Amino acid sequence: MDQLEVRVPGPTPLPPQVRQALSRPMVSHRSQAFRDLLHGLDLRIRPMLGTQQEVLFLTASGTGGLEAAICNTIEAGDRVLSLSTGYFGERFAGIAARYGAKVDYLRARPGATVDAGAVAARLSTASFRAVLVTHSETSTGVLNPVGEIARVVNEASNRPLLLLDGVSSLGAVPLAMDTLNVDVVVTASQKAWMTPPGLAMVALSDRAWERASGCTSPRYYFDLAAARDSALRGETPWTPGVSLLYGLEAALGLMEAEGFERVTARHLRLAARVREGLVQLGFSLVAAPGFESPTVTAAYLPAGVEAHQLTACLERDFGIQIAGGQADLKGRIIRIGHMGYIGEDNVTNLLRSIESALALIREEVR
Amino acid sequence: MDQLEVRVPGPTPLPPQVRQALSRPMVSHRSQAFRDLLHGLDLRIRPMLGTQQEVLFLTASGTGGLEAAICNTIEAGDRVLSLSTGYFGERFAGIAARYGAKVDYLRARPGATVDAGAVAARLSTASFRAVLVTHSETSTGVLNPVGEIARVVNEASNRPLLLLDGVSSLGAVPLAMDTLNVDVVVTASQKAWMTPPGLAMVALSDRAWERASGCTSPRYYFDLAAARDSALRGETPWTPGVSLLYGLEAALGLMEAEGFERVTARHLRLAARVREGLVQLGFSLVAAPGFESPTVTAAYLPAGVEAHQLTACLERDFGIQIAGGQADLKGRIIRIGHMGYIGEDNVTNLLRSIESALALIREEVR
Repeated sequence: MDQLEVRVPGPTPLPPQVRQALSRPMVSHRSQAFRDLLHGLDLRIRPMLGTQQEVLFLTASGTGGLEAAICNTIEAGDRVLSLSTGYFGERFAGIAARYGAKVDYLRARPGATVDAGAVAARLSTASFRAVLVTHSETSTGVLNPVGEIARVVNEASNRPLLLLDGVSSLGAVPLAMDTLNVDVVVTASQKAWMTPPGLAMVALSDRAWERASGCTSPRYYFDLAAARDSALRGETPWTPGVSLLYGLEAALGLMEAEGFERVTARHLRLAARVREGLVQLGFSLVAAPGFESPTVTAAYLPAGVEAHQLTACLERDFGIQIAGGQADLKGRIIRIGHMGYIGEDNVTNLLRSIESALALIREEVR
Repeated sequence: MDQLEVRVPGPTPLPPQVRQALSRPMVSHRSQAFRDLLHGLDLRIRPMLGTQQEVLFLTASGTGGLEAAICNTIEAGDRVLSLSTGYFGERFAGIAARYGAKVDYLRARPGATVDAGAVAARLSTASFRAVLVTHSETSTGVLNPVGEIARVVNEASNRPLLLLDGVSSLGAVPLAMDTLNVDVVVTASQKAWMTPPGLAMVALSDRAWERASGCTSPRYYFDLAAARDSALRGETPWTPGVSLLYGLEAALGLMEAEGFERVTARHLRLAARVREGLVQLGFSLVAAPGFESPTVTAAYLPAGVEAHQLTACLERDFGIQIAGGQADLKGRIIRIGHMGYIGEDNVTNLLRSIESALALIREEVR
């Protein structure tokens, strides 16, 4: 196979326009050309996050963005409520624990989401610095109901900060950050943004900025106040990933040309097709009905087929990379990313390839 | 000007082969193709750092690599000796201070280096956890004598760890990390490695690894033990900057084809030409004789010419970006990067352009 089609839940495929932009010559990050680039990216991403706050660009992958969210708002001894629905919920909470937070968990079984009523009940029992939520839980293909969760967080006495991992959702799933009063939003280039990994985008509410100024956790590279100070003059405090920012600029151009509403509608439509196709082929979905992520689908395999057989056969014989499960779900599920640069034909090809691969595997077994 | 020539001290120009590699399609970072890529890069960079230790790849710029060096070895209350010879020496020490280190400074005036005898004297007065050294100080164009410093550190009772900022030196200046017993070495893609910013490369000695396992500073994204655990199977713990790693692979191919000895000789030769040319044009060098960096030259301007006039004229009329001074040297000097993808013709063009720009500026003034 000359070129693989990546359908893992990130990194996602690159449009030709993005690939071309990546190969542009370097420019000084202390030049007007760079300042114009960064300033434009900030302004163009804001509506896709539903915010008028500044969008900051960190040269790091999504996990670095999550650490920035934590180390600028959480310090040792802070009580934090983790609404963990899988591997990446655990990671977000794990970062807080590294910074000395006392983490309370409201966990859901794989495929389920945390009930907003349960969140409200827990918030009434104690005072929390922050609530951690994963928007699209990449390990299970669940989209957590951020709107409902934000409502109960907003109604809590001693209202905690609401920190959102939007790594695998934003750019494909709309968010009304300012309206919902989400305090920190994190996303990353290699998901719906159709750009290689290496950029995390972060936005903070006024309350989060206020907290950051008093937060004592040690930080330097991820010091968001330093990032904001530099952003005021269109710069970054440390040398930024210039080529990745070029790529992101090209990707935003494509998203704007399609129209952001159409982008989000396309993701919903293609996700539904992937799910229906998998169910027809004998898979069962991990995500509970009504909570399916528009960007990632996780599914238990049909009887008699092992996950590693399917992923290996798809890569070897059909040139398609999909992912397996993580942690407890390792070996039990497959995961497919359908975000960013993907259209109807890709889904058709993907489902046909999976069907053929299943037939091949069963042929070999017989 | 259609395309600018970047002669700032990073990011540096990209060879066409690197630009092409950057535009390659994505691949899953949990695939054999990626594992082969990462493993190969590790093995190929080791000789250029003079180490048999594993080279770890962080998706971050150089400052992120420096923070990784600090937060894996330094904790609150640790006493640290900073051999600061400029802006980046201060940054390295500043990161340690953020983690609660008590920082002692041995500073040198701009252009000078710290005397190894003074280091030995200071080390005999107290017990330090670590000594921080900047190899090529990008703010002054000084190459600090790592060999001499390493010798006195090695001879100290209660030998401290030796942490080296090799961001703007390595890949162009050889280092014998293992022979000199340097404990942590950091470099970054956008300097002599001819790759866009976004990758930091870090290597640790056995002593540094031992210290890291006991170091209590909070860290997650920059947890080097996690990076090493993943590296054992050719992976990174968090999604890596795949396209930048492709670029680095292409750059290493060019460096190997030229031969690393010839690469380092070329840097010495071109640096000497830049210095001689600038002196002939009336500049005076910041770096003291004998301590000039092979990668960066900083120079005070000829009488009657302001730094901002020269940088603006060079960019506008000659399409060349050079840098100004930082901190106290802002407005007082220019800085030129001559590392990575640079040859005799580039230096000729650079010096001629500066000569012409000086004439234009003087013409306007008259």
